[in-house]
Amino acid sequence: MPLIRETIITTMDRQGRVQIAPLGLIAEGEDWIIAPFRPSVTLDNLEQVPFAAASHTDDVRIFAGCLTGRHDWPVEPCDTIAVPRLSNALSHWELEVVERIEHEQRPRFRCRIAHAATHAPFPGYTRAKFAVIEAAILSSRLHMLPREKVESEIAYLRIAIEKTASPADHEAWGWLMQKIADYYEPKEKGA
Amino acid sequence: MPLIRETIITTMDRQGRVQIAPLGLIAEGEDWIIAPFRPSVTLDNLEQVPFAAASHTDDVRIFAGCLTGRHDWPVEPCDTIAVPRLSNALSHWELEVVERIEHEQRPRFRCRIAHAATHAPFPGYTRAKFAVIEAAILSSRLHMLPREKVESEIAYLRIAIEKTASPADHEAWGWLMQKIADYYEPKEKGA
Repeated sequence: MPLIRETIITTMDRQGRVQIAPLGLIAEGEDWIIAPFRPSVTLDNLEQVPFAAASHTDDVRIFAGCLTGRHDWPVEPCDTIAVPRLSNALSHWELEVVERIEHEQRPRFRCRIAHAATHAPFPGYTRAKFAVIEAAILSSRLHMLPREKVESEIAYLRIAIEKTASPADHEAWGWLMQKIADYYEPKEKGA
Repeated sequence: MPLIRETIITTMDRQGRVQIAPLGLIAEGEDWIIAPFRPSVTLDNLEQVPFAAASHTDDVRIFAGCLTGRHDWPVEPCDTIAVPRLSNALSHWELEVVERIEHEQRPRFRCRIAHAATHAPFPGYTRAKFAVIEAAILSSRLHMLPREKVESEIAYLRIAIEKTASPADHEAWGWLMQKIADYYEPKEKGA
């Protein structure tokens, strides 16, 4: 399997409405593949406007937020494309779609980095940020995974949260734990 | 528990011999605590030369390498302190010890960032790099953990390696897996 970078992808429709989504960018030589599932706003947008920004952020609240209904994160203009990027990015890439590979469930958009910029120094890895990203991915797959597996993985990831989390990491973790709890123990009809 | 950043600390003894060690920097207000275990070369060095460089790198081979007998990573001069930093750092901090807090097992050196510099853009998180860092930490605690726990955590972390690793990540993972295998099934007497 190839290298995959977990990042925040912004895309835009013809009317200029922006979508913010956590997505794994798949390495293919010098290019990067965006492979959104069908149906999704990111897919619709890339069909309308073949550009995207990949914002590399260490604010893991944005990963957790997008998976728990919190989509409203500050963005600002890119340098060479109309699609904006996250304001809170350590660095970002401006991507241009150079090829579209059809697929029934998951079309692939091969993208080239048209421009890259750095905004802040990388402050080092933290185990808690990893735990939030893993829990965010897990929270998007609850319908496909046995509850026991989800709960044992969360118990493992929680150790890193307890040992190394910043206040923002704790906030992100809390959103995800609420989502998982609501999934297994819905409080209201239809929840 | 406080924020902890997993980074590579370089220190130096009076003769100028450099030690490279993966260490968690513990946040304390604006300062960062280095808390090396006793006995350790990092501890001896900080007692002799009260400066350190924290190199924030995404080359996880350096974390895995230092835990598997591979200590020889390229370094280069810092800007304001005599201790060098890793060449392969996305950014680094030059740290000055401002207080020493005694402890029988784990003295704490409170450090202030005297200077910081950025060398390359953060290219985004990957699940595989975190899996290597987690496995590296695990590999340093084999004597304290039940084998079952180690093996189940490795099985979990391996998923991210299989899905998202770069060649360098695979290499780092391989070193750690060899170390763990050797611990449980030593090939030679005394291994």
